[in-house]
Amino acid sequence: MKSPFNSPFAAVLASALVLSASAVLAQAPPLPAPEATDPVKLELMKGFPPAPEKTVKLSSVLKFPNGRWAFHHMRELGPTAQVWRGDEKPSVLRESLLDLGSLGFESDRGGRTTLADWQHATFTDGLLVLHRGKVVYQKHYSGMAAHQPHSLWSMSKSFTGLLATILIKEGTIDPNALVTKYLPELKDSAWADATVQQTLDMTTGVAYSENFRDPNSGIFQYLHAAGLLPAPPTYAGPRTIPDLLVTIKKEGEHGAGFKYKTVDTEVMGWLLQRVTGKSYAALLSERIWSRIGAQDDAYVWADPIGTQITSVGFSATLRDLARVGEMMRLAGRYNGHQVVAEGVIAEIRKGGDSEKFKANGQAMRAGYSYHNQWWVPHDRDGTFEMKGLNGQHMHINPAAELVIVKLSSHPVGDTSFTHNADRHAFAAIAAALRSH
Amino acid sequence: MKSPFNSPFAAVLASALVLSASAVLAQAPPLPAPEATDPVKLELMKGFPPAPEKTVKLSSVLKFPNGRWAFHHMRELGPTAQVWRGDEKPSVLRESLLDLGSLGFESDRGGRTTLADWQHATFTDGLLVLHRGKVVYQKHYSGMAAHQPHSLWSMSKSFTGLLATILIKEGTIDPNALVTKYLPELKDSAWADATVQQTLDMTTGVAYSENFRDPNSGIFQYLHAAGLLPAPPTYAGPRTIPDLLVTIKKEGEHGAGFKYKTVDTEVMGWLLQRVTGKSYAALLSERIWSRIGAQDDAYVWADPIGTQITSVGFSATLRDLARVGEMMRLAGRYNGHQVVAEGVIAEIRKGGDSEKFKANGQAMRAGYSYHNQWWVPHDRDGTFEMKGLNGQHMHINPAAELVIVKLSSHPVGDTSFTHNADRHAFAAIAAALRSH
Repeated sequence: MKSPFNSPFAAVLASALVLSASAVLAQAPPLPAPEATDPVKLELMKGFPPAPEKTVKLSSVLKFPNGRWAFHHMRELGPTAQVWRGDEKPSVLRESLLDLGSLGFESDRGGRTTLADWQHATFTDGLLVLHRGKVVYQKHYSGMAAHQPHSLWSMSKSFTGLLATILIKEGTIDPNALVTKYLPELKDSAWADATVQQTLDMTTGVAYSENFRDPNSGIFQYLHAAGLLPAPPTYAGPRTIPDLLVTIKKEGEHGAGFKYKTVDTEVMGWLLQRVTGKSYAALLSERIWSRIGAQDDAYVWADPIGTQITSVGFSATLRDLARVGEMMRLAGRYNGHQVVAEGVIAEIRKGGDSEKFKANGQAMRAGYSYHNQWWVPHDRDGTFEMKGLNGQHMHINPAAELVIVKLSSHPVGDTSFTHNADRHAFAAIAAALRSH
Repeated sequence: MKSPFNSPFAAVLASALVLSASAVLAQAPPLPAPEATDPVKLELMKGFPPAPEKTVKLSSVLKFPNGRWAFHHMRELGPTAQVWRGDEKPSVLRESLLDLGSLGFESDRGGRTTLADWQHATFTDGLLVLHRGKVVYQKHYSGMAAHQPHSLWSMSKSFTGLLATILIKEGTIDPNALVTKYLPELKDSAWADATVQQTLDMTTGVAYSENFRDPNSGIFQYLHAAGLLPAPPTYAGPRTIPDLLVTIKKEGEHGAGFKYKTVDTEVMGWLLQRVTGKSYAALLSERIWSRIGAQDDAYVWADPIGTQITSVGFSATLRDLARVGEMMRLAGRYNGHQVVAEGVIAEIRKGGDSEKFKANGQAMRAGYSYHNQWWVPHDRDGTFEMKGLNGQHMHINPAAELVIVKLSSHPVGDTSFTHNADRHAFAAIAAALRSH
């Protein structure tokens, strides 16, 4: 099957998360025009059956522009587990809409832009801005309806980190214990002598690379094991997440420096399920979705033996993500009760070791740290964030009483085109609302 | 992978729908004890990861007892599309519970039984009885929660028939037109000179058999094409539903006699989507789920190119199915408005040609007819029914103001162990409620 954009972007899309923006920009061809890749205009998956060249399959999701359709239809491509919203009525999201589209600001590349242009240029599928708990701006694009869950990619990690922090604060998990206390299966793996906290903070020393440009990178083995990318016939590696994790070996020292690794999160997700005896989807429902007054069920991806993926497989709706962000902004109190203990939010917001964060190069995110699977910029407003492949972003700004959720299908996988662009836009929104 | 019950039941499970009960009974080994196959007690899919011998995969769903877990977890095994419940609050299902478990009656095999024993003996996963719109009895078993959709198997066909009848009554589809008026792709197939009505009533002449005991039966090609049963490496047949349908040839005459054929329904499902430009899941949401005040999203199975299966792939919750049944009982009026036009329900209830029904042997269902994908027994109470593999059943009895939904995971696929047993139980419930 050929994609209508079987272009040099296959390579760019696949740029590693660890690359700096300038390194990517130096080698990248020009981005396609967003309007030319609108999945509705392109007629992706339109018709019964869709035309062969417009058919998106699991094997071609990561080939741009298929993600423009697929990111809000992941469940139609493979196994998923329900994250139940519960039987209560949805919490009310009051609206007080502002015309923010014409808001002007200086972009990360220099020069003026507007909020409308920024959304367009960053291949936005959905944007929701909550100010003091009210919806002040909400847009859906790419044919995505408000009730359709969108792939969060690595924003999923922050949900795994949130669940882990809850269980740590409740005393169910000891952050200073070795991972193998809970998962003895990992005794011969990289995590044999790693602590829970090192794994949560991604300061483990693991022989694993997350380089999308290298076909031998661990990330491809991960995607094959997760069933997210069908393996070629010659593939003889692990076919499930547990089978993958036990094979990964140590490299370097634990606790020395931050290095972004999807497999650390999968270890944590496995651990959560082991100690609770509940699936990731059940935990997300029980601890979060059923308590925030979610409007819609969400879902998580499952591997071929039903292992639920805990690092990149979560899909949820824009409006429910906004509820999560608002709950986090309000120190866990939302929907008339304490959804998550205040200490859990405080632990996440305090961030990690900024020195260790720099160890493996994070020029684009200077000043940040990564703690319990959340991104903390240590800025004046006390913001904290979730981030994911292809431009997924949740930005929580307590000082500005602001929550922003942005879902996208940017052609470039890593956040080199979206992290700084989004941060500039978020700052402009905060400034505008402060003076409003 | 070996199943803990890799027994002679693999063969019995696979008995053809067209067999009579006595033919099956003559060759069948004794049924396993239901309590020995409770998926919770068996620990199917328990643990992270589950033990290999307790792991249910798509390839082993039809191997008993895996269905006892799988039938309420189908989405965890493959691609599905959301049938959205809409944004309105759920319609209220008032309760007025009665202790019907001890209700005694004469079973179809002779001898006395009780409603509790009947449920047990027929491997029930869920049972809901509505009398005059109130829930008088509701049970869930097998670890199935009230919010979990359960596979309806061929009850799906009745939903396809309901949608078709709606579109016929609205004038969008002409029942007397040839199928090829809407689906020119079928011009060289069995349906080249078949009408819509013949296809809806399954009186087409089609070279296709639905015999689960014959590995060369069309039903296996169907399951492979639908992606419901992974194909063996040697399989060279169609891999999508449209690709399958165009290859099927005519046999005999159209309109001569009823013969149960899943592929007739798939033609109708394809036709519905073609004329409306909307997917089956979208139609189910727009026409039914969002209008009855459904409490939960439902879902439909999709093949590898996203074709939504319209004959066996629908999963829904017990409580929402009860809402559908009540809407049908009340001639389409439910949840404060006319969900479906009265004429649609009248058309379905009138049934089909009882003489044609007998043409290919339906001893077990003497007196029935099949019309617009619904089973009509032409009995005194004016009942009409949906039926599906492994004991799925919806029974609507207007005279007794009664709706019964029964979801099961019986080891025998066809309804030879459930059709008559259920009918006896339904009659006992109707009699008990009449005198209540």
